[in-house]
Amino acid sequence: MNNQKLTKFPVWKKLTHHADMMHQPEMHLKNLLKDNKRLNNFSNKGSNIFFDYSRHRVNKMTMDLLFELAENRKAIELFNAMTKGEKVNNTENRAALHTATRSFSSDSIIVDDINIMLETREVRNKIKTFATKVHSGEITGSTGKRFKHIVVIGIGGSYLGSEFVAHSLKANADRNIKIHFLANVDIHNFGAIITEIEPETTLWVVISKTYTTAETMANVKQATVFMEGKGLDPSKHFVTVTSKNSPGDDPASPVLETFHMFDYIGGRYSVTSAVGGVPLSLYIGYENFEEFLKGAEEMDLHANNSPPEQNLPLIAALISIWNNNFLGYQAQGIIPYATPLSKLAPHVQQLYMESNGKSVTKTGEELDVSSGLIIFGEPGTNAQHSFFQLAHQGRSFPIDFIGVVNPQYKEYKSKSKGVTNHQELWANLISQPSALAIGKDDPKKAKYFSGNRPSSTILIEDLSPANIGRLLSFYEARTVFEAFIWGINPFDQFGVELGKVLATDIRNEISEKNNKNNHNFDKNDPITKFYLDTLFSGKL
Amino acid sequence: MNNQKLTKFPVWKKLTHHADMMHQPEMHLKNLLKDNKRLNNFSNKGSNIFFDYSRHRVNKMTMDLLFELAENRKAIELFNAMTKGEKVNNTENRAALHTATRSFSSDSIIVDDINIMLETREVRNKIKTFATKVHSGEITGSTGKRFKHIVVIGIGGSYLGSEFVAHSLKANADRNIKIHFLANVDIHNFGAIITEIEPETTLWVVISKTYTTAETMANVKQATVFMEGKGLDPSKHFVTVTSKNSPGDDPASPVLETFHMFDYIGGRYSVTSAVGGVPLSLYIGYENFEEFLKGAEEMDLHANNSPPEQNLPLIAALISIWNNNFLGYQAQGIIPYATPLSKLAPHVQQLYMESNGKSVTKTGEELDVSSGLIIFGEPGTNAQHSFFQLAHQGRSFPIDFIGVVNPQYKEYKSKSKGVTNHQELWANLISQPSALAIGKDDPKKAKYFSGNRPSSTILIEDLSPANIGRLLSFYEARTVFEAFIWGINPFDQFGVELGKVLATDIRNEISEKNNKNNHNFDKNDPITKFYLDTLFSGKL
Repeated sequence: MNNQKLTKFPVWKKLTHHADMMHQPEMHLKNLLKDNKRLNNFSNKGSNIFFDYSRHRVNKMTMDLLFELAENRKAIELFNAMTKGEKVNNTENRAALHTATRSFSSDSIIVDDINIMLETREVRNKIKTFATKVHSGEITGSTGKRFKHIVVIGIGGSYLGSEFVAHSLKANADRNIKIHFLANVDIHNFGAIITEIEPETTLWVVISKTYTTAETMANVKQATVFMEGKGLDPSKHFVTVTSKNSPGDDPASPVLETFHMFDYIGGRYSVTSAVGGVPLSLYIGYENFEEFLKGAEEMDLHANNSPPEQNLPLIAALISIWNNNFLGYQAQGIIPYATPLSKLAPHVQQLYMESNGKSVTKTGEELDVSSGLIIFGEPGTNAQHSFFQLAHQGRSFPIDFIGVVNPQYKEYKSKSKGVTNHQELWANLISQPSALAIGKDDPKKAKYFSGNRPSSTILIEDLSPANIGRLLSFYEARTVFEAFIWGINPFDQFGVELGKVLATDIRNEISEKNNKNNHNFDKNDPITKFYLDTLFSGKL
Repeated sequence: MNNQKLTKFPVWKKLTHHADMMHQPEMHLKNLLKDNKRLNNFSNKGSNIFFDYSRHRVNKMTMDLLFELAENRKAIELFNAMTKGEKVNNTENRAALHTATRSFSSDSIIVDDINIMLETREVRNKIKTFATKVHSGEITGSTGKRFKHIVVIGIGGSYLGSEFVAHSLKANADRNIKIHFLANVDIHNFGAIITEIEPETTLWVVISKTYTTAETMANVKQATVFMEGKGLDPSKHFVTVTSKNSPGDDPASPVLETFHMFDYIGGRYSVTSAVGGVPLSLYIGYENFEEFLKGAEEMDLHANNSPPEQNLPLIAALISIWNNNFLGYQAQGIIPYATPLSKLAPHVQQLYMESNGKSVTKTGEELDVSSGLIIFGEPGTNAQHSFFQLAHQGRSFPIDFIGVVNPQYKEYKSKSKGVTNHQELWANLISQPSALAIGKDDPKKAKYFSGNRPSSTILIEDLSPANIGRLLSFYEARTVFEAFIWGINPFDQFGVELGKVLATDIRNEISEKNNKNNHNFDKNDPITKFYLDTLFSGKL
């Protein structure tokens, strides 16, 4: 049943038909919002997150059909199976157990006859011990000085999640340690960081599952040569987060400590594993990291155990599919009204677009509907002064507005126009979804707002580690729920392979030219040859 | 003729018909790219920028029709008129003279009987004098210490362009001055900056055309109270960039210096005016700022004087319209393979989406085609490890790849896999457009790459101030060329007004509650009331 074409499902056909009805002028959001019970009927709270979907172009019938779709596609059953260790990443024959990395339950999770909770807890304890010793000064660099700079070398899934959480929880970073992210192979990234650190007090955290990622290895090379050039012993300034027995877990190349990551954790879902655990525990302390894990765990349990009508990430996933496949929106904005959440959109951009940017089902057939969306965003109110002109009067795209009820920095209470900065922020957070939904008639076309532009509003109480964990888990669960409904595998990423293969060929050409100055690029196609010649000539 | 519906133009109909042909399998990019002259025929160099459009889904016929469209719509004539001071911003009855701010020509530009070049040059000289005196220590803060921190208070167009240029030219910032951007009204933005500055050595640069922008005024209030709290005289620590006679140009509120901006400069086009000039001259020195201006001027002259077939920003605009209106792409990625250009995408996101996110023509009729695109992006290779899965195998979107031939930090030459970091970066820059265009057959659907995914590659020789100026002007000119072809006004932004009006109502409600604790929100709609109650209760 789950391998049937999506468009052949009766409920999919019903939704298509229903969408025609929702396109009628009387179903404009300005009319739907006249119902005084609209917010009550189309909002929910769970795991300390409030989710308001009253400004989406849905009515009760829409939601009933969407819940029927979720049931037909066994979305929650698949989620349950995922958290129990079933090999839901079928194309790579792996489990997907990011939820286990934040589980504090004493239950076992068995994969290939092994209780993976044992190794998971062991890594967590190792992180705790290591971070505590760094903070106490028991572990130092090669000259005996305390570490003051963490440079995280890693790219993609080894980077974006940690960056999001580190930014969000900056106010908790009171260990006299700064964090830097060296992701891009571009030498400007390395060069800029070098000007900001002090080699003696720098700890490099290298994160790579295979320890072969080209960009990461190139940056490890630069960092090693740099530290040696400063007369420092790299083995006292590096830790690795990598798979067992990878080249980064080789006693022949000693490091301060190695933390394992496991094949049931995909990069983009790895923030709660050692990938996020090591840098974040060093930056904000292990206790805060554990609070963050516990928030994520709570949302996992919510996603696992709530009925569809109360299941926040499932509702978010269903509305996203409705917007995408039935109303035709191709992009989604994520606009947090909180500067510390400025890296949420780049994280979800990877999480969602790499997971769901697929054209085939998990069983290898062509998908008969479009999956995936373009995700982008900047914090509000900045975004209002940037691209919201298009949001209000140009091509429409659904938006997740995110609000934080209580700000940090409560000491700055000066008022302008009678309100504090936080209140001004909220005046905008409240008004934008309303303006987008309701619009405004004006005889002058240039001042006419068509309205009917959908958005969610998501609230958290404050920027505590636990709430950031909840938010992270919410977006992870929403992403996999969408994949389960489409019937795609959100845990593989074959689409990034072709570029890597071609880059290897070109790297080999460059390497050959580095070794033999008279090597020419004539055997390449004319465009490749042109770019290689330009690189070596240094001139346009 | 220019007011006729676009779809009624014979050339528009021809393009629609031609697009059907370009959708045929034999027109797949893998076939078009078999032509050895493809790069020669579909690339150009101008103003030291190389623009390769060989990987777009175009042939000679496409380009001929597009050039005919540009001629029909008088794109270059309108650009010429714009640079001469004609009131192309017709809905606000203003000229659009960002090009004048970087003109070093001795020619006059007359607007309303005034030669605006006089005031433009005067402001430039004032910036030069002021920055020089700050750098020499002649102008200091109220305690006599040299300035070491610039905090730019401004949002949207008073912020994003300067941030892009400051990031790009960080290597030129050798004046012992750090720059910070206080844009968001969110108190977290202010709170975080306060922890990074030293009040005595901080110069606040307040940028607001009207000096009434709610966010900016709220941050000015916080900054003023903060400085007074430190016993410092704000009038010795603030400068303003604002319109003549605005509240920021009032002798009753003295500041160190006031720099004027003029009504013929829109926010998103203002980087080369005092808006960018003051903070950037303080950060990188006036000489570097002037080099930046001269690069922008050179590209302006290229856009003004080149025939269509050699006019880079016009070709980029035409291809964007082709992709958007004829091939159906709704978004565009901007992927610079250079970390210092990481703020280019957010800048162009505003520039383009606020300019062209419109639904009406400049004469007030409904536009009969879709204008505007969603612009987003992150640096490569980071983006490859983030959302490129979707780019290769999901929904397709055109991409601008941007390469820099010569990097800074040439001292870091260590090789990994036989190549330097910069060479590894280029191996990827070369391979990605090719992988996207050509694709790969594979009997396994999960490993099949459909290809035919379009991109441009844009090269600059290095990250010099002049090249950053060229790149800025290139994207500005491309943006206005698209608007001129669609017949919309890229200089107004009525779409941001409704949200401001609603925010004012809500701000007034909050202010009233601040003054009278027993004020209730019952007169508001139930959703607004809920959010206001939540804000004041501090609880979910």
